[in-house]
Amino acid sequence: MISFESDYTTGAHPKVLQRLIETNLEPLNGYGADPYCESARRKIREACECPDADVHFLVGGTQTNSTVIAALLRDYEGVAAAKTGHVSLHEAGAVEYTGHKVLEIPQENGKIQADVLADYLAAFYADEAHEHMVFPGMVYISHPTEYGTLYSKAELTAIAEICRKYELPLFLDGARLGYGLMSRQTDLTLPDIARLCDVFYIGGTKVGALCGEAVVFTKKNAPRHFMTITKQHGALLAKGRLLGIQFDALFTDGLYFEIGRHAIDMAEKLKRMFAEKGYEFFMDSPTNQQFVILSNEKYEELKRSVVMTWWEPYGDDASVVRFAASWSTTEEDLAALEKLL
Amino acid sequence: MISFESDYTTGAHPKVLQRLIETNLEPLNGYGADPYCESARRKIREACECPDADVHFLVGGTQTNSTVIAALLRDYEGVAAAKTGHVSLHEAGAVEYTGHKVLEIPQENGKIQADVLADYLAAFYADEAHEHMVFPGMVYISHPTEYGTLYSKAELTAIAEICRKYELPLFLDGARLGYGLMSRQTDLTLPDIARLCDVFYIGGTKVGALCGEAVVFTKKNAPRHFMTITKQHGALLAKGRLLGIQFDALFTDGLYFEIGRHAIDMAEKLKRMFAEKGYEFFMDSPTNQQFVILSNEKYEELKRSVVMTWWEPYGDDASVVRFAASWSTTEEDLAALEKLL
Amino acid sequence: MISFESDYTTGAHPKVLQRLIETNLEPLNGYGADPYCESARRKIREACECPDADVHFLVGGTQTNSTVIAALLRDYEGVAAAKTGHVSLHEAGAVEYTGHKVLEIPQENGKIQADVLADYLAAFYADEAHEHMVFPGMVYISHPTEYGTLYSKAELTAIAEICRKYELPLFLDGARLGYGLMSRQTDLTLPDIARLCDVFYIGGTKVGALCGEAVVFTKKNAPRHFMTITKQHGALLAKGRLLGIQFDALFTDGLYFEIGRHAIDMAEKLKRMFAEKGYEFFMDSPTNQQFVILSNEKYEELKRSVVMTWWEPYGDDASVVRFAASWSTTEEDLAALEKLL
Amino acid sequence: MISFESDYTTGAHPKVLQRLIETNLEPLNGYGADPYCESARRKIREACECPDADVHFLVGGTQTNSTVIAALLRDYEGVAAAKTGHVSLHEAGAVEYTGHKVLEIPQENGKIQADVLADYLAAFYADEAHEHMVFPGMVYISHPTEYGTLYSKAELTAIAEICRKYELPLFLDGARLGYGLMSRQTDLTLPDIARLCDVFYIGGTKVGALCGEAVVFTKKNAPRHFMTITKQHGALLAKGRLLGIQFDALFTDGLYFEIGRHAIDMAEKLKRMFAEKGYEFFMDSPTNQQFVILSNEKYEELKRSVVMTWWEPYGDDASVVRFAASWSTTEEDLAALEKLL
Repeated sequence: MISFESDYTTGAHPKVLQRLIETNLEPLNGYGADPYCESARRKIREACECPDADVHFLVGGTQTNSTVIAALLRDYEGVAAAKTGHVSLHEAGAVEYTGHKVLEIPQENGKIQADVLADYLAAFYADEAHEHMVFPGMVYISHPTEYGTLYSKAELTAIAEICRKYELPLFLDGARLGYGLMSRQTDLTLPDIARLCDVFYIGGTKVGALCGEAVVFTKKNAPRHFMTITKQHGALLAKGRLLGIQFDALFTDGLYFEIGRHAIDMAEKLKRMFAEKGYEFFMDSPTNQQFVILSNEKYEELKRSVVMTWWEPYGDDASVVRFAASWSTTEEDLAALEKLL
Repeated sequence: MISFESDYTTGAHPKVLQRLIETNLEPLNGYGADPYCESARRKIREACECPDADVHFLVGGTQTNSTVIAALLRDYEGVAAAKTGHVSLHEAGAVEYTGHKVLEIPQENGKIQADVLADYLAAFYADEAHEHMVFPGMVYISHPTEYGTLYSKAELTAIAEICRKYELPLFLDGARLGYGLMSRQTDLTLPDIARLCDVFYIGGTKVGALCGEAVVFTKKNAPRHFMTITKQHGALLAKGRLLGIQFDALFTDGLYFEIGRHAIDMAEKLKRMFAEKGYEFFMDSPTNQQFVILSNEKYEELKRSVVMTWWEPYGDDASVVRFAASWSTTEEDLAALEKLL
Repeated sequence: MISFESDYTTGAHPKVLQRLIETNLEPLNGYGADPYCESARRKIREACECPDADVHFLVGGTQTNSTVIAALLRDYEGVAAAKTGHVSLHEAGAVEYTGHKVLEIPQENGKIQADVLADYLAAFYADEAHEHMVFPGMVYISHPTEYGTLYSKAELTAIAEICRKYELPLFLDGARLGYGLMSRQTDLTLPDIARLCDVFYIGGTKVGALCGEAVVFTKKNAPRHFMTITKQHGALLAKGRLLGIQFDALFTDGLYFEIGRHAIDMAEKLKRMFAEKGYEFFMDSPTNQQFVILSNEKYEELKRSVVMTWWEPYGDDASVVRFAASWSTTEEDLAALEKLL
Repeated sequence: MISFESDYTTGAHPKVLQRLIETNLEPLNGYGADPYCESARRKIREACECPDADVHFLVGGTQTNSTVIAALLRDYEGVAAAKTGHVSLHEAGAVEYTGHKVLEIPQENGKIQADVLADYLAAFYADEAHEHMVFPGMVYISHPTEYGTLYSKAELTAIAEICRKYELPLFLDGARLGYGLMSRQTDLTLPDIARLCDVFYIGGTKVGALCGEAVVFTKKNAPRHFMTITKQHGALLAKGRLLGIQFDALFTDGLYFEIGRHAIDMAEKLKRMFAEKGYEFFMDSPTNQQFVILSNEKYEELKRSVVMTWWEPYGDDASVVRFAASWSTTEEDLAALEKLL
């Protein structure tokens, strides 16, 4: 079986694992107060060109989203997010569990449009009954989105400007950020994102780590006692070293970007391969996830040798199927898939 | 510097790490649906002599406590726990954050006494105003407790009987369970615990894993859709393999027990060492944490070469200081400490 | 100034007030354990032809909605409701504050269509990722809806059948139930509603009481310890008599229905009046709220003498304006309005 | 039967009821935006000598406590309260339901001692692990307490000073404030309380109203969008007039104080009556609740003709029984009781 199931099917990138092995016996302080966490924080600040950033390490994506969102919102506020946003749909109501509504905004290919956001906010404040409604308290976007799409620098700037106008923190979910940054079709750099967003996270789990997400409060704006908040959410790792060492490795010699680039290269080849064989795509994805339309017959046939993710039906006889590349996707995997098509 | 700071200062036990290395490139299903998780579940059921148990892997202790407690309680119920219980004091209100009160019960050396629990429950139902109060909905104990103490089989049986009488699930926090099971002063086995408790967890983080706690619902009594609940709490790891592989290793060839025994051996030696030098103990601990009374002068002196945990003041001139042993404590560490005393 | 602003602008119906006056000096048990509450419960059960119903009195609508919904849902469940439902939009996130998502269903004129609900539920369970999503745990509808519209018996039956199939409690928000029951265009009786729904409430605040909503669990299915849950939500009135006496009055000699009929009569006259003068309606409302399209010029002119509720813009030069009738609307009010049109 | 059961057994004080009757037909804005609410706010500000106060009307005590507490605390904070405080014990976990821990402080006769509070706070910040604990975020006291006792001006000043030092808002639960203010043993006036506390509420339900509590943020310090927060808690009454009219009446011509004085007079007579007959008291209460020790035999005998509240056992053969006076207690009630003793 070859696997294009997701970008979290294999373990850690070998260089990340190597650092865990080398440091295994060192006794270190817990809860993120060890020198590897400190070093990783410093390297991340540098990579973001954001010397004042507060950097915190959490374990997983849903946890990070609900912890950050709950920490930033006041009780009477909700988070505006695309209707297809991960927090809206696929986190089992983790945000609502903390008491906050996800205010669902119409989307296109997984992205919020700046003018749609502006209209929503203007309409909210124009509504005479808005004191009986959930106040928008922040904006959540994902980049890449759940559909693998990307915001352009102009689009992100436009959203950021609206957020500034309404004094709403802008939070970017970067669970797959590495793939977005290394896409051949992006004009957004890590420092751009750090400049435009108030908080974002650099995904580790899906970009070469065993687990871990690095939350960056870009304007020294971490909520007071964020460590206690993290603990309260069950998100504070006793062996914080596990996160610090991994992110230190990921941000040494550009490994995080190298992983992103490799997956993008593999995804582009895969895309070309499907295109050449005449397959169509559900949408044009510039990142490591490709959404291919397969006849149901072909899908069933492939399933015998390939692990992939069924996404949604496409008419009566076909399906949208997701193929994901990662740091561990190899040329051999692609060659094997090609033979099967 | 030698460290007796805690049992989570070093990485993973080498055999655990070895298995992570060996399996690193295998593509596996996420979210706990991989064969290592399955194998670990089977081995845990066997070790518990509990063929019907539902076993779930979570990441950390506070997270496990709040997820399990919230999943078992109805909205109007709270969890009865020792006033010094971890959930009462040191989890930043994680249980309350899910909407439930911790009903604090008087304790002795960290333990709830069965008759005190019985009195509390009888008084609750005798109170004519009890419909205006938080109903006790389950009982939480830790074993070893936060003070390193242990319940005897008779004590745990007595508590379990009261719980049965009032139809309250009994939940045992086993963050340091390995040390409790291998204590020279215990008569409680893992199957005993599985038989007497409705749910408990086998701590990994503090017993040789990088992270991870194995929750055992002993009577096939996991709450419906516990996986979704786990996700909602931000406690569902995408790379569930990280937990499955580690617990599979810990429950292969008795490694979990071996780790426990080693730490107990080291702690007993340390205890003897202090006793021989005339030091006194804050309490008699049968497990891997020893609470020694040091003059403040001695404490300051030791601090230059030893990492340990200040616990609480002891009169004006002395302090209670905790020394913890773990899988990675060595004879060399002990010898070095001895020289300093 | 004449007021058509809403159905909660005046105090209590004189007969309701009269009973409060007559009983004022009687010392009565608190928290709903007085004979007037008991009598009101009995009369409500009779009016519902539902001898097994559990009846509880709460104070206001948002409170009732969030208390009932939170009491019926498990943690991992949400409530399915029309996108325009009161719980979705106009309760300041009270449901989310209790930790539950409102699962927004498309609507028509404020109503959920049975087939749309069926499709949503089928799609949910067909989605392979549904264990990562919020489970639908109950269905909320309002009757009359926020737009004054009504479900027919056939429509409500169809929704109830889907709910039965998926084992979802059906909850009907009857904040304005009296007007729905007395509409000239309804075929749904109170016993029909009691038979088809698992729980509903009979609105008092908007139908002649000072405050108060009577929650009817129609199948003796009140959640365990619902009184404690009510207390926990801050919804248990110490002087429960205030609610019991009012509902006892409302359900004596058909007063509740009489109030409804009067308001419907007034609304129908108002409707005819507008129609005769050539005004158009935003939608055809069969109840006490009428949504009239006024030119902005006319609206501004009327505002000098009439209190009404601006609803939403209608093109550039007109607005939808709500006129509500209630127990206290008089022929004189109508005559005065007519003169102004 | 004569009733000394509580101070919420009868309806509204006749003057309060009279105003409800007189205003019943006036159409008024909802949600607290009517002239009676405005007038009541102004009169309360005057009575408090607190021209900048924000005044909000809520319906009941538990609701007010949990709404105010949740609105003032940050997520990681809890409320410090006496172990016997109403929020600790008798509100069904309403505070915890909003996600916050009640930090229980030892008490004497229902009162927090300033030095005990100071010690608790000092110890909290001295604890090296306090970032893993719930931060004290405000202090809650009740006045009169649940035992009918009162803080002296010196005591309240000392507590307020500690609160200032730690920047903790001081919140006083005045469910029975009228009786405290009119006690013959108090040196605290309403302006004193307004000056010393950051927020408090003036209880209506137990002091002559049908329902209602007036929350006073004394330093123009109401949390932002407190109306929306109130709505979210289900505590915003549609017919806000019901609260405004009642409080307007209570603060017209000193009615609130007159009610308090009458009940105190009745309680003092009752106290003297019991004392003269040789009965003992559980504690010396200076307010409208008297805690008398009755032999169980006497208690059973009295129960046939008197409604009173059993409080707790007193040895094997006696009980503490509460007798409460209110605005509606009469000389005839006392005479009838005297005959039975």
